[in-house]
Amino acid sequence: MIKKILVANRGEIAVRIIRTCREMDIKSIAVFSDADRTSLHVRYADEAYRIGPPPSAESYLNMDAIIKIAKKSKADAIHPGYGFLSENAEFAEKVRKAGLIFIGPSAEAIIAMGDKMRARELMQKAEVPVVPGTGALPDDEAQIKQLASKIGYPVMIKASAGGGGKGMRLVHSSKDLISSYRRARSEAASAFGNDAVYLEKYLEEPHHIEFQILADNHGNVIHLFERECSVQRRHQKVIEETPSPFLTEETRQEMAKHAISAAKSVNYSGAGTIEFLMDKHHHFYFLEMNTRLQVEHPITERVTGVDLVKAQIHIANNEPLHLQQEELKQSGHAIEARIYAEDPYHNFMPGSGLIRHISEPLGLGMRTDGYVFEGYEVPVYYDPLISKLIIWAPTRSEAIDRMKRALYEYKITGIKTNIAFIQRIMEAKDFIDGNYNTHFIEENLDFLLQPSEQSKEIEDIAMIIAYLDYQNKQNKRKDFVTHQQKHHSNWKNFGRLFRHNPY
Amino acid sequence: MIKKILVANRGEIAVRIIRTCREMDIKSIAVFSDADRTSLHVRYADEAYRIGPPPSAESYLNMDAIIKIAKKSKADAIHPGYGFLSENAEFAEKVRKAGLIFIGPSAEAIIAMGDKMRARELMQKAEVPVVPGTGALPDDEAQIKQLASKIGYPVMIKASAGGGGKGMRLVHSSKDLISSYRRARSEAASAFGNDAVYLEKYLEEPHHIEFQILADNHGNVIHLFERECSVQRRHQKVIEETPSPFLTEETRQEMAKHAISAAKSVNYSGAGTIEFLMDKHHHFYFLEMNTRLQVEHPITERVTGVDLVKAQIHIANNEPLHLQQEELKQSGHAIEARIYAEDPYHNFMPGSGLIRHISEPLGLGMRTDGYVFEGYEVPVYYDPLISKLIIWAPTRSEAIDRMKRALYEYKITGIKTNIAFIQRIMEAKDFIDGNYNTHFIEENLDFLLQPSEQSKEIEDIAMIIAYLDYQNKQNKRKDFVTHQQKHHSNWKNFGRLFRHNPY
Repeated sequence: MIKKILVANRGEIAVRIIRTCREMDIKSIAVFSDADRTSLHVRYADEAYRIGPPPSAESYLNMDAIIKIAKKSKADAIHPGYGFLSENAEFAEKVRKAGLIFIGPSAEAIIAMGDKMRARELMQKAEVPVVPGTGALPDDEAQIKQLASKIGYPVMIKASAGGGGKGMRLVHSSKDLISSYRRARSEAASAFGNDAVYLEKYLEEPHHIEFQILADNHGNVIHLFERECSVQRRHQKVIEETPSPFLTEETRQEMAKHAISAAKSVNYSGAGTIEFLMDKHHHFYFLEMNTRLQVEHPITERVTGVDLVKAQIHIANNEPLHLQQEELKQSGHAIEARIYAEDPYHNFMPGSGLIRHISEPLGLGMRTDGYVFEGYEVPVYYDPLISKLIIWAPTRSEAIDRMKRALYEYKITGIKTNIAFIQRIMEAKDFIDGNYNTHFIEENLDFLLQPSEQSKEIEDIAMIIAYLDYQNKQNKRKDFVTHQQKHHSNWKNFGRLFRHNPY
Repeated sequence: MIKKILVANRGEIAVRIIRTCREMDIKSIAVFSDADRTSLHVRYADEAYRIGPPPSAESYLNMDAIIKIAKKSKADAIHPGYGFLSENAEFAEKVRKAGLIFIGPSAEAIIAMGDKMRARELMQKAEVPVVPGTGALPDDEAQIKQLASKIGYPVMIKASAGGGGKGMRLVHSSKDLISSYRRARSEAASAFGNDAVYLEKYLEEPHHIEFQILADNHGNVIHLFERECSVQRRHQKVIEETPSPFLTEETRQEMAKHAISAAKSVNYSGAGTIEFLMDKHHHFYFLEMNTRLQVEHPITERVTGVDLVKAQIHIANNEPLHLQQEELKQSGHAIEARIYAEDPYHNFMPGSGLIRHISEPLGLGMRTDGYVFEGYEVPVYYDPLISKLIIWAPTRSEAIDRMKRALYEYKITGIKTNIAFIQRIMEAKDFIDGNYNTHFIEENLDFLLQPSEQSKEIEDIAMIIAYLDYQNKQNKRKDFVTHQQKHHSNWKNFGRLFRHNPY
């Protein structure tokens, strides 16, 4: 039985894992780079060890240093979190060779799912649908026409050696196929020195829908339903929710069945996610499998009641799954918003700096998974994700209302965040209607970047705090009232208060 | 439809009600005493008005001032919260006469349930069990013996004019009855100038178990299961949980049925609570009905998913209940701990003062309903309840583990709190085993007051912060590191960090 876990990560996910360790009475060991000496994961763990300086290559990606600390501190197991070494088969192997438990799947499963072509072949063998496509096209134009109509229009012509949109052509019907094919081919030749092109089905109004699975070492695999992750900006997820407002129950069951087949095809063990793309006709295709915990795992935890980190640890202990498929259901609705230290109004530039004030939203239906606090300096070296706001309510519409309330209460000053931007998403008609796909942010960017009441208010507060800080520095006002005002979270009301208040 | 609600309360319950108003897009109006100018409810509400100075008689209990503000600010309704005017029939009546909606039951229901003797009669008529007892005993000793054996031993002899234990006698069997009766009678005569005494069934190892009900204005009444509230100190609840670890499903259903009868017997409308006492033999008796929202309502919200304040507002809008009894179930387990500003080690003396540092526990399964923040000065005038920690987990044992984790993360300095005392409750064998009754705190006081690891740590942090504050005042260390250290929430780990850290 695992008694001590080294958490090979930082930020919110390290804090989140340490929390479950504490609840399970398992000792936790934090590792940290020099930039993270003051981080919350270091404070909440039972022990904490420096690994090296930033950037990550010299610290959070330094496999040998991490394993050495695990041995020295007598850890039984290593939890890799997400990112960093979490999908690194070599690391999983090294951990096991050092006599430690890697909390995650086998190196073989990581390798199989990490290689996109191999994963595609495995999925075809397991009869999991993949995006229909061809190999490099032959020269025979009649044959190309046949291939295209077999896939079904619209189709995408892509350069085999390609990337960045070069040599790509979207074709809506057979009459444009051959001319587009010829142009794509000559474009590919001049761009990549290789004129090979292939066909792939073009997915209209695609959704990113993924399934959470849990698999033990005894052949049992269960799914914990889907997460709708189509609110993305440049493939970076911003909002996730479950249940998906787009799925029908029938499709849900069908996708779940394929998700379980996908996991079984690589003898998967642990928590994993099967990502699918789904077009507007509800046709879905395997995209990839993430062989680790996902950032957005809490929405699944909220509607199923399952602690996924705890489940991971049980599995790593070789225990059979504690749950049967029939016991699981999606209760109510959960939405996660990722709070990033970034400036949406300046091309989403990632930010860093000292957090001067923070108030987290609390009360009914809130969960916050974060790692920053008042007085913490967000380092420049890492992902700008500072917190995740997970909202639950009986219905989707109530969850949106609750999310708005949470964003209203969430005040962070000192650094720029995307809180006001998320508030706008909650006000966007297509989001409210559940009528969105992966193009949502792109298509609504003008609306989303219009300053809302909320964003104006946040700016007002930042300005007032900056002014009070200036005064403080001048030693003109060091009294308690100033401190109070610094912590005031609703300046409009404060104004009103003074209006109605005879003092 | 209600569009604007005046919240005639303060502290955490005012904040809690305002939160639901915001989620329902209903404007909220806060009222405040001079001592509450800087309170969170004032900040979170859409409007805020002063009512008067402390104490409450001149502000939160000033009916006319509150109704005047409601009219002036164009509120449609008044929510009284709990305490203060929440069970004041005169206020309910005045609110209605002013043309406003009182979010609560009719004045008649408040009066009927507020008068203990009348409530007892009503319950007997509705066939709800009440604690068996007699009127003033006759002089005939044979008759007294008959009465006692009809009630069943043990019985309590109580003075009709009594109180404070005077004239009270616990009798275990018929052989002691008459001698005890005589002594009780003469004691009552000398203490109260009235020698009338009566018999009441003595409840062994009693539990305080209450049922939440919701009733609309159309005759529908549902229950939302029980809350076990036996962890009390001098009739002040400290810990509440649901489901009760003591109830069987059969008794639960039977009590629920009686709770609904009780509510129907007074044509109840709104949210209410039927309190029962239950002895070690699982016999239960009506104690009283609270005709308002309870402090501990969030544990019911957590296991049923119902927002009780929202339900109250729907009912006040004359809507039929949104839920059927069959749709409700108890999912998982919820425990609430009341965080009081008090000093358990000095006879639980209530405290007040400036909150220098606060970190709330966050992450999976937590809900915090509070109203204090860093830099807030807890006033001396009100109830010492500063926050409620509501923990959910799939099972009771996991909920206890999670509660311990939450208490570990919960750091408040500047004022004394009962956090370490609650930590000890979570470590007490009888509590862990679910084997406790209303005598639990009294019987375990020595254990509960032993300083735990947790309480020692909290004292260490308080000392260090006091030292750093002193240094800051001396202007010797105003650098960022000091600020960081002030916000450090785990000093033991900080020590470890410095040991392992080469810097």
